[in-house]
Amino acid sequence: MRLTNYFLPTLKEEPKEAEIVSHRLMLRAGMIKQQAAGLYSWLPLGYKVLRKIQTIIEQEQNRAGAIQMLMPTLQPAELWRESGRYDSFGKEMLRITDRHDRDLLFGPTNEEMITDIFRSYVRSYKELPLNLYHIQWKFRDEIRPRFGTMRSREFLMKDAYSFDIDREAAEKTYQRMFVAYLRTYFRMGLTAIPMRAETGPIGGDLSHEFIVLAETGESAVFCDRDILQKPIPARDTDFNGDLSAIVDEWTTPYAATEDMVDMEEFEQKVPEERRIAARGIEVGQLFYFGSKYSASMNANVTEADGKDVAVHSGSYGIGLTRLVPALIEAFHDENGIVWPVSVAPFEVILINLKAGDELCSKTCDSLYGQLQTAGLDVLYDDTSGGAGGKFANADLVGIPFQLIIGPRGAKSGEAEIKNRKTGERETMPIENAVQYLKDIIEPERRDTV
Amino acid sequence: MRLTNYFLPTLKEEPKEAEIVSHRLMLRAGMIKQQAAGLYSWLPLGYKVLRKIQTIIEQEQNRAGAIQMLMPTLQPAELWRESGRYDSFGKEMLRITDRHDRDLLFGPTNEEMITDIFRSYVRSYKELPLNLYHIQWKFRDEIRPRFGTMRSREFLMKDAYSFDIDREAAEKTYQRMFVAYLRTYFRMGLTAIPMRAETGPIGGDLSHEFIVLAETGESAVFCDRDILQKPIPARDTDFNGDLSAIVDEWTTPYAATEDMVDMEEFEQKVPEERRIAARGIEVGQLFYFGSKYSASMNANVTEADGKDVAVHSGSYGIGLTRLVPALIEAFHDENGIVWPVSVAPFEVILINLKAGDELCSKTCDSLYGQLQTAGLDVLYDDTSGGAGGKFANADLVGIPFQLIIGPRGAKSGEAEIKNRKTGERETMPIENAVQYLKDIIEPERRDTV
Repeated sequence: MRLTNYFLPTLKEEPKEAEIVSHRLMLRAGMIKQQAAGLYSWLPLGYKVLRKIQTIIEQEQNRAGAIQMLMPTLQPAELWRESGRYDSFGKEMLRITDRHDRDLLFGPTNEEMITDIFRSYVRSYKELPLNLYHIQWKFRDEIRPRFGTMRSREFLMKDAYSFDIDREAAEKTYQRMFVAYLRTYFRMGLTAIPMRAETGPIGGDLSHEFIVLAETGESAVFCDRDILQKPIPARDTDFNGDLSAIVDEWTTPYAATEDMVDMEEFEQKVPEERRIAARGIEVGQLFYFGSKYSASMNANVTEADGKDVAVHSGSYGIGLTRLVPALIEAFHDENGIVWPVSVAPFEVILINLKAGDELCSKTCDSLYGQLQTAGLDVLYDDTSGGAGGKFANADLVGIPFQLIIGPRGAKSGEAEIKNRKTGERETMPIENAVQYLKDIIEPERRDTV
Repeated sequence: MRLTNYFLPTLKEEPKEAEIVSHRLMLRAGMIKQQAAGLYSWLPLGYKVLRKIQTIIEQEQNRAGAIQMLMPTLQPAELWRESGRYDSFGKEMLRITDRHDRDLLFGPTNEEMITDIFRSYVRSYKELPLNLYHIQWKFRDEIRPRFGTMRSREFLMKDAYSFDIDREAAEKTYQRMFVAYLRTYFRMGLTAIPMRAETGPIGGDLSHEFIVLAETGESAVFCDRDILQKPIPARDTDFNGDLSAIVDEWTTPYAATEDMVDMEEFEQKVPEERRIAARGIEVGQLFYFGSKYSASMNANVTEADGKDVAVHSGSYGIGLTRLVPALIEAFHDENGIVWPVSVAPFEVILINLKAGDELCSKTCDSLYGQLQTAGLDVLYDDTSGGAGGKFANADLVGIPFQLIIGPRGAKSGEAEIKNRKTGERETMPIENAVQYLKDIIEPERRDTV
């Protein structure tokens, strides 16, 4: 993409309304614009990140056997009256009346609707297990939306819902999602720690939150440093096989959020030098809630012996619009964002230091074509601005590699490559630059590990 | 995808509520489920079609220079008060009040919000032209939603919004969208005819609807048969070049909807043997409305001479959730849907006629792997049902090619391939089947033309 054809409205000023660094950087990097309290537009750069995150989530959900579909944003109130949550949900539920005075609501979650879908079609235990997911906009009317898209009212969530014949089978499904989540966050470059958690308004007795450590995290977390060294399950993990060894390994070291922590137990189980007491951001949650919805909504299947039983269910969420600021909280420095390659809006920014110079522009135009042919996702700064502004902008938006061509380099055949993360610069013959970048970037995509 | 792991709840009974064939077939093929009047869930098979359509639209929008972003579903009422449409829009606008008694609405379209984004960032004529699009859920509270997702209340739309310095530049942008639309529908296998249209509540004085001919179409259309023979602009069309010759060629033959037709002119300009008077489904619309929103909302840029001018704009919509039934109206027979390859939920269905037969299943399992390795999108019917039901189901869901393996064929090394569209069956050695399918299917994807 040529920057002269793109829409990247970066800001020089510090936005006053932003309390945390990710919110400030998302505004400054031209990723989002607030449209009302807790309502955001995703400008092109922000939207590209959102899509890369979505692709990773979809690939890992599909690999784990979840099937993608899509439910509407609005839901009829009747379904929520059946489960009893229409009254219990409180003011965070956005209630709507249509022109015929029918009660609707903007879905904050989808347990009721998916249970309705399930009971409409599935009759026999033979059709289980079933795990359906969608990625759809949700709404929670937070009394005080804040921190940009970290805690917005309208937010994009991946939510999966599983149906199994009994608790044992349901726990296997839970483990599949557990492993899929470990892989999902790893592919985004994140270290996300699964922690036992409260189930809250979703219900049930088994839940894990996945937590990214960050100073600005909303909750205190306590864990054993050992958990940071656990190996990530590989791409060829057999999701039809027994995953309990992986889950056991990840759940043995102590890890709990402040809601669940028992300080005495923490101090007893974890030697002092391995104790981490920090703040964290929740980037996903798994719930097993058994027959909470299937019983109240009559979602039964017939077993082999002819008896009807309520199915056992769980739900599994990842907030996409929250993951973007969570990533920025984890990956930034004083000059701006530092994207991991796998979720970067672009992988390379090609910087033409003097767009008015004929040889320099010709060299850059040619490199732009070569980078695209090499399959790299490239933003080409072909604007007429000065070098200082271009460097500052490139650092701000955080593209992992900068390929810098000036008039002198174009003449002498030399390119400079800057690694945004380490700050290191390398000079090399222009004809080597594309292959050099390809060799560094491809493994960093983490799509083959 | 193995059918035993998939969720494809096809129905044997004719759904009584469906008035048109596409609605009936979408319900029977397990593509959608109604959740309330005009609100639908997209079940996995339907969702796959929606995503294929989305990919084609995105590729053609990007190629034509439009930039993708995403605006929220809910909008603050203030923006619509500025343009004057908050009161004029009528009861089709779903008005919402949040917990702080602020007025929101579920966006039926986005002219106001995109104009607000534009005026927040763009100051100079140098930043033009600019064309931004998103694919987002909209809501129109139709008094009588009907025909399934053809006229639902919540619907998915691609809407692009352009900003240009004057009418001349804006017409060039309009032409780029015109050409992109021709290519978009062509790639889906559709013949869509551009017709001069009324501008309605969007406003402006130039508009084209793209119409697919179908008996169940909501409006009468009148056109010259010549237009059906016009060539589709190629993939390598230069969108920076002059596209007026293409647009002229496509707009010269008479074509108008019932709102715009002048019967005298129609009969005078078109010889009787070339006159088509038929019914059509609108699958997209282009609008040029000049400064209608920029003037009322102060979206100005500074020209080279230092003067401020209101920008000239247009908007360009394609209804994705309506395109799916429109495709089915165009492509079906008495046995079910007949998908064009480019939008088919799967390209091949591999049918194991006897899942209990060891050799037959082994042969099918191997073919399933080979089809996937060949890059084909395959559904594998590995269920234990009988042959008759499997054939009926395969015809109903309309996957373009059926690769059929029975116990006898597995033994003698013979496969049968059925072309869903022509009904033709070919028998060939099993080892030739995958290459045969690859050679037929790849060009039908229309992604390289």
